[in-house]
Amino acid sequence: MNPLIEKLSWRYATKKFDPTKTVPNESIERIIEAVRLTATSSGLQPFELLLVTNPEVRQKIRAVSWNQAQVTDCSHLLVFAAWDDITPERVNMMFDLTNEVRGFVNEGWENYRQQLLGIVGARGTEANYQAAARQAYIGLGSALAAAAFEEVDATPMEGFDPEAVDEILGLKARHLRSVILLPLGYRQAEGDWLVNLKKVRRDRNAFVTEVQ
Amino acid sequence: MNPLIEKLSWRYATKKFDPTKTVPNESIERIIEAVRLTATSSGLQPFELLLVTNPEVRQKIRAVSWNQAQVTDCSHLLVFAAWDDITPERVNMMFDLTNEVRGFVNEGWENYRQQLLGIVGARGTEANYQAAARQAYIGLGSALAAAAFEEVDATPMEGFDPEAVDEILGLKARHLRSVILLPLGYRQAEGDWLVNLKKVRRDRNAFVTEVQ
Repeated sequence: MNPLIEKLSWRYATKKFDPTKTVPNESIERIIEAVRLTATSSGLQPFELLLVTNPEVRQKIRAVSWNQAQVTDCSHLLVFAAWDDITPERVNMMFDLTNEVRGFVNEGWENYRQQLLGIVGARGTEANYQAAARQAYIGLGSALAAAAFEEVDATPMEGFDPEAVDEILGLKARHLRSVILLPLGYRQAEGDWLVNLKKVRRDRNAFVTEVQ
Repeated sequence: MNPLIEKLSWRYATKKFDPTKTVPNESIERIIEAVRLTATSSGLQPFELLLVTNPEVRQKIRAVSWNQAQVTDCSHLLVFAAWDDITPERVNMMFDLTNEVRGFVNEGWENYRQQLLGIVGARGTEANYQAAARQAYIGLGSALAAAAFEEVDATPMEGFDPEAVDEILGLKARHLRSVILLPLGYRQAEGDWLVNLKKVRRDRNAFVTEVQ
């Protein structure tokens, strides 16, 4: 009925990738498409993806990621990079794109644009970055589900030096900040201590409170 | 091949729910299960869900949510509430649960527990809350996908007064902070200005940079 549950049960944070296996481009593109389609606050999509296959670049990223081997052993490395600020230019870019795609200008939407410009202007750079980073995590939720549907293994990682990764990928000049690494590939089960261990989650009743 | 893409294309941020329609419990439980299975940093699941059906409580929440009608018109209201801090008690609860579920104590895992206790202790309450809130957004990504698989409409909302919602739901005493509202139900297409408009996303090439 809902194949997502099965896929989310299948996935796990892969500890050892098989460095000899490459994920087909079609699978990578469907994972990217799932992230691209992700819902974001006010439809801003306030983050971008970097798809890193270059081995030297990945070696440099590994060196600032607690030397985690998944960064270089994986097939493709996705980097989620959030906007470092939600500027008027960026808000206007997305609202203008909306008008262009929909083929008309709507008064309610234009009023909302002005309201949003006021909110992000008042909130300041750091709070805007934090808000943008949260949206990237919705995209991570989509990416993990999409990878599982492709039977592609994935390891979400926060354990890295974001400023160093920004430097390696030239993100600062692009007004982006790295927030999540997501190595994608195929597990090498014999070298993976986690692959056969039970998934651990709190029980439904310890996780949900009903207010009836 | 990957039905998730189709489901993510189908969904949209519903602006008008049909207040006469109720989502079956089985669907609600599968949406909850998708959130429960979501990957989180160090496996902490540093958030909880509240499933609000009580009409008076929902009326109060609507009053502090820019009077958005989805809060009361929807079938079920999910509230994502993040841990207000990542305390040693909470870290130990999840690491102890892991040992219990897996049936053994692993030295590497115990070393990691100590390392993590050091990290969250040094980071401080506000940074721990922000980290927890980000994880809730991964859960939102799962919830939106799961709802779409159930053909249940959903409206992710950040537009509310979190402190007021915390007060209404008694979250402060439980050391939780509300971060996202997610009304679930069935669209009332005739009253929904968004339902027939095109989904707007930046093109793949404006969203992804390849580092080859």
